[in-house]
Parts: sequence; structure tokens; C-alpha cells
Amino acid sequence: ALAAEVLSGTNLAKRIRSTAADAITVKQNEVPGFKPSLVIIQVGSRPDSSAYVRMKLKASKESNIHCEVIRLAEDVSERELLNHIEKLNDDTNVHGVLIQLPLPKHIDEVKITNSVVSAKDVDGFDRYNTGELAKRGGQPLFLPCTPHGCMKLLEESGVELSGKHAVVIGRSDIVGTPVAAMLRNADCTVTIVHSRSTNIPEIVRGADIVVAAVGRPNFVKGEWIKPGAVVIDVGINYVADSTKKSGQRLVGDVEYETAKEKASFITPVPGGVGPMTIAMLVENVKLAAERQLQKESQLARIT
Amino acid sequence: ALAAEVLSGTNLAKRIRSTAADAITVKQNEVPGFKPSLVIIQVGSRPDSSAYVRMKLKASKESNIHCEVIRLAEDVSERELLNHIEKLNDDTNVHGVLIQLPLPKHIDEVKITNSVVSAKDVDGFDRYNTGELAKRGGQPLFLPCTPHGCMKLLEESGVELSGKHAVVIGRSDIVGTPVAAMLRNADCTVTIVHSRSTNIPEIVRGADIVVAAVGRPNFVKGEWIKPGAVVIDVGINYVADSTKKSGQRLVGDVEYETAKEKASFITPVPGGVGPMTIAMLVENVKLAAERQLQKESQLARIT
Ligand SMILES: NC(=O)C1=CN([C@@H]2O[C@H](COP(=O)(O)OP(=O)(O)OC[C@H]3O[C@@H](n4cnc5c(N)ncnc54)[C@H](OP(=O)(O)O)[C@@H]3O)[C@@H](O)[C@H]2O)C=CC1
Ligand SMILES: NC(=O)C1=CN([C@@H]2O[C@H](COP(=O)(O)OP(=O)(O)OC[C@H]3O[C@@H](n4cnc5c(N)ncnc54)[C@H](OP(=O)(O)O)[C@@H]3O)[C@@H](O)[C@H]2O)C=CC1
Repeated sequence: ALAAEVLSGTNLAKRIRSTAADAITVKQNEVPGFKPSLVIIQVGSRPDSSAYVRMKLKASKESNIHCEVIRLAEDVSERELLNHIEKLNDDTNVHGVLIQLPLPKHIDEVKITNSVVSAKDVDGFDRYNTGELAKRGGQPLFLPCTPHGCMKLLEESGVELSGKHAVVIGRSDIVGTPVAAMLRNADCTVTIVHSRSTNIPEIVRGADIVVAAVGRPNFVKGEWIKPGAVVIDVGINYVADSTKKSGQRLVGDVEYETAKEKASFITPVPGGVGPMTIAMLVENVKLAAERQLQKESQLARIT
Repeated sequence: ALAAEVLSGTNLAKRIRSTAADAITVKQNEVPGFKPSLVIIQVGSRPDSSAYVRMKLKASKESNIHCEVIRLAEDVSERELLNHIEKLNDDTNVHGVLIQLPLPKHIDEVKITNSVVSAKDVDGFDRYNTGELAKRGGQPLFLPCTPHGCMKLLEESGVELSGKHAVVIGRSDIVGTPVAAMLRNADCTVTIVHSRSTNIPEIVRGADIVVAAVGRPNFVKGEWIKPGAVVIDVGINYVADSTKKSGQRLVGDVEYETAKEKASFITPVPGGVGPMTIAMLVENVKLAAERQLQKESQLARIT
């Protein structure tokens, strides 16, 4: 059997980020004050969240984006968190506001994500963006980063999407549901499966494209993969591994070694969707800053 | 073969509407001024739109709902239409505002449907409701009427939805997409097919539940239906029929006679989803009026 071509998110993300960095530099030569700026709010100190925040900070800086992190205590009140967001909403020097999820249980996540103004919602999670994405001809201001990263990887494979059968495993608001909407908008036939679904192996066997966003290590078996299918593995799972210094190892939601023998293209974990998520965030902050600049120069022309 | 049980929308809709009418009367005995009120705006005079508006008007009145129709000329400007909507948005005596679709080409339908305040959007089409419906734990203020009617018919069948495979044919913003979201929220595995899909017969053959919203007479063949499946036919199509006085006959998107031999439950056309759409509208107007009343009595208590 031919092994799948590996769709490297690391390489593609690097290209996207350096293109963004170049575009920002070009713009700065035109408009000296131009400096895309992102503020990340992290509540509490979950180690995984801290790791994500570190990566976002690093990638932003490398792309010539100003990035600040506001770290709030685990027991911060919802009101205080909202105060921070409102201040950032009003600050014209801030273009993107990102609330690192998950939030502690006492805070209403839906309320908080909806309190970021749509023009700065670089995560794409607020009601405006979600509603627009759900529609056929909708015009979201930002695409959510992880699903958008999945779509870029599919694009990179060069595989024609129209009319293909895509199976999305998982229906979360941040991955499964929006990626299903994007695949439908790209003219795929889309099946969404989740923890209540029966016959998942059989459904996956019919898929030309598989997007796994389950959060269970090696959930999708290689033998489920239709020969020639494209496999996008969103999962990020840590499993015990005594051969590693850290005692653990990162694996996806797909049994990589066996799936690789069946698929035409497959994303690795790590180095697949993960880095793409960050690259799409950089893209969104750049976009937000460009829009803000355009708005300001329109205002300047009027007044 | 056993023939399917017919899921009568006419009967169920009658029950829902009379329950709503009774509840409104009860409330009026408590609060004499209580009178749910709907305003429908019709632009132009398409005969199908006029027929729908007539039905909505009649059903509202029968359910003890005040209903007015504002009829605007085909060439009304977008600005004038918006002025009407804004006035209705501000009028506390109006609880529901419905823009009869489709609108003429020179008017931006998305802009118009989004201009109705969410609290009066009894069609459930604005961005707030669409965004909330798209989410897992979303809280739409109103469910869109036709998809909600489909779900009520499924409920009426008594068939357990969790884990079942539902195939939705069509991905429009008013039927296919929202019904797919509702089925997913009801824990179905959901496949969405559309005009770019290949292998539709095969996909339908795997379905425990089929929702057809295609707009093509007899599109779904009886031989595609898995024995025992539940079939919801949303289609409203007129086909030539010289045996009828009008010269035409109403048919659905499903080849009814053959599908009936395979399905466990099937909705007829006419008399299936159509009347349910109207009943769900009545429900939404009642809901809007109850919410408005509650808001007013809360305000009265505060001041
Ligand atoms: N690469 C990246 O940048 C990112 C990676 N991730 C990773 O992606 C994965 C998914 O994330 P997220 O969507 O947030 O996770 P959630 O836990 O929110 O959602 C998981 C989904 O998988 C479904 N599921 C769980 N168990 C099963 C099962 N046994 N069979 C079928 N479906 C199942 C759930 O179903 P139900 O709805 O019924 O509960 C749910 O819809 C995680 O590993 C996460 O770490 C997430 C975000 C970004
Ligand atoms: N009972 C009721 O109260 C109501 C009934 N209806 C009826 O429901 C039907 C659908 O309405 P609506 O959703 O507004 O219609 P639209 O025309 O907006 O959408 C039709 C959908 O069907 C898909 N489609 C068209 N042709 C094919 C094909 N050959 N194979 C597969 N899919 C196809 C289209 O695909 P694509 O997206 O690729 O174009 C589209 O997604 C109509 O008959 C309408 O009259 C509608 C509203 C209320």
C-alpha cells in the first residue's frame, strides 16, 4: 500500500505567518503608526492554557504583531472580567481580543465570548460570527481559527472538495460545528457524528474527507479509513509514555500509523492542525488591524 | 408491505393552535389588555406570497392573535421598508414582525431580516437566533417555524431521535440548515446533502429519518427509503394536472405513494409541514407577547 502524503501544518503555518509578517512590514512603510495588536486574557493558570498562550504570544511577536497577555486570578469575578473586555473594546490601539478558553466554572463562557465586539473577535466565536457562518451566504468578519486551519490544510492537499463526502467527528462550538459549516459551504456533503452516534466506523468508511475532533487518543482506526481519503486530525491528547522525559506523549484522535497506510493525505499530531490554529489567529489580527486602519482613513477623509 | 402511518400536520397544527388560543384567553382573563399582535409586511404581490400571508392572517385571528398586513409596492425602497420595520420595532403594542419572503431583487434580504429586533423576530431568521441555534448550548429566542414544525412532527411520531441517522436534503437558511442544527441538537447523526452532492440515493438509503427540502417534485424515490424510516416532506411544488379545475396539483419533494410503502411514518403534501409552519408562527407570536407582558410587569414592579 502507498503511504499517505503528510500534510504538514508546521510548514504551511510558517509560510502563512511569514506572508502576514511581510504584509505588515509593507503596510508599516506606508503608514508608520501601523502596528497590529492583540490582547489575550487568561483567567487562572491551567498548564495547557498557559502553553497555548505562550505559543500565541511567540507567534504574534514573530509576525510583527504587538501582543500582551492580561493574567487574571482563577477567582476573578465575571464583572471584573467584563470590565477588562469593555476597556479593550473601546481601545482603538487594540485590534484583537482573545479570551483563552476554558474559563472557570463560575464564569458564563457564552456571555463572555459574546462581550468582545465583533470587530475584535479574532477567535470568531461571538454570536455575530457564528450566525453568519451558519448561513449560506453569510459574511463572518472572522473565521474561527482551528476550523479555518483545517480548511487551509485541505486546500493545501489540492483535493477538490465539491461533492465529496466529509465526515466530521465532534460537534463542539469551537471545532466540529464550524468546520462542518465550512465544509458545507465548500459544497461537501457533510455528516456530523458525536458521542450519541451509532455505527461510526461504518460512517467513516464512506468518507472522502475525515475531520476528527473528538478528544480521544487514537479514536479513529486506520481500518475505518476509505482508501485515498484525506484525514485531518484535530485532536490533542496526552498519553503516558515512559520512554519520554516528560512521561507523556502527544497523540491525535486518529491512529496515525495505520491510517497513514490508507489515506491519500494525513495531518500529523503534533505539527498538523495545532500550528495552523495559531497561524490563522495571526491572520485574523492582521485583518482586524487592516480594517481598523481603513476605517480610520475613511474617517480622516470625511472630517 | 405495511403502509406508513400518515403524520398529519393538519391535525397536529389544529391542536397546537387551539391550545395557544386557549392559553391566550386564560391570560386575557388575568390581564385584560393582553392581546398578542403580529404585523406581516408583504412587498409586491407574488401570488404564492399572498396565499401564505392569507393563511397566516387567518390562523392568527383564529388563535385570538391580532394580525395586520402592511402591503408595500414591489418597487418600495429599502429605506422605506426599513422605516416601517423600525417603527414596528419601537411599537410596544406589536409583538411579532414578519417579513414575507422572498423580497424583490433590489432589496437586501439579509439586511432586512436582521433589522427586525430579536425579541420580535417570530420567524427566527435574524443573526441572533441563527447564531444561537448553530451552537450546542445556544438559547435562540424563537425557533424558525418550518424546521420547528418538522421537529414537532417527528416528536408526534414518538420515534426516539437520539443516535438515529437523519439525512436532510437541502441546505437553505430557512429550512435545510436550521432543521439540521435541530436534529443534531436532538442527538441525531446528521448528513446534509444538496445540489452538489453525489450518491444521494445511497445516502438516503442509510437514513432512519429523511427530511426533504429540495423544491423538486417527487425528487426522493420510494425505493431510496430504508424500510421503517420516518419521512418528513417539506416540499411545496405545483405540477400540471389537467384533471384539476385549477390545472395544477400540489406535490411534495417525495414520491409519496411509493415512499409510503417503505416508511414507518410519512407526512403528506398538502397537510403535512405546511400547516405546522403556521402553527409554529402562532406559537412564536404568543411567546413574544408573553415575554413582553413579563417585561412590562417587571418594569412596573421596579418603578
Ligand atoms: N489543534 C488545535 O488547535 C485544537 C485542538 N483541539 C483538540 O480537538 C479535540 C476536540 O476539541 P473540542 O471540540 O474542543 O472538544 P469537546 O470535548 O468540546 O468536543 C468533543 C466532541 O467529540 C464528541 N465525542 C466525544 N466522545 C465521543 C465518542 N466516543 N464517539 C463520538 N464522538 C465523541 C463529543 O460528543 P458530544 O457532543 O455528544 O459530547 C463532542 O461533540 C480535543 O482533543 C482538543 O484538544 C481543540 C481546539 C484547538
Ligand atoms: N412547508 C412549508 O411551510 C415550507 C415549504 N417550503 C418548501 O420547501 C422546499 C425547499 O425550500 P427552500 O429551502 O426555501 O428552497 P431553496 O431553493 O432555498 O433550497 C433548496 C435546497 O435544495 C437543494 N437542491 C436543489 N436541487 C437539488 C438536487 N437536484 N439534488 C440535491 N439537492 C438539491 C439546493 O442545493 P444548493 O444549496 O446546492 O442550491 C438547496 O440547498 C420548497 O419546495 C419550498 O416551497 C419552504 C418553506 C416553508
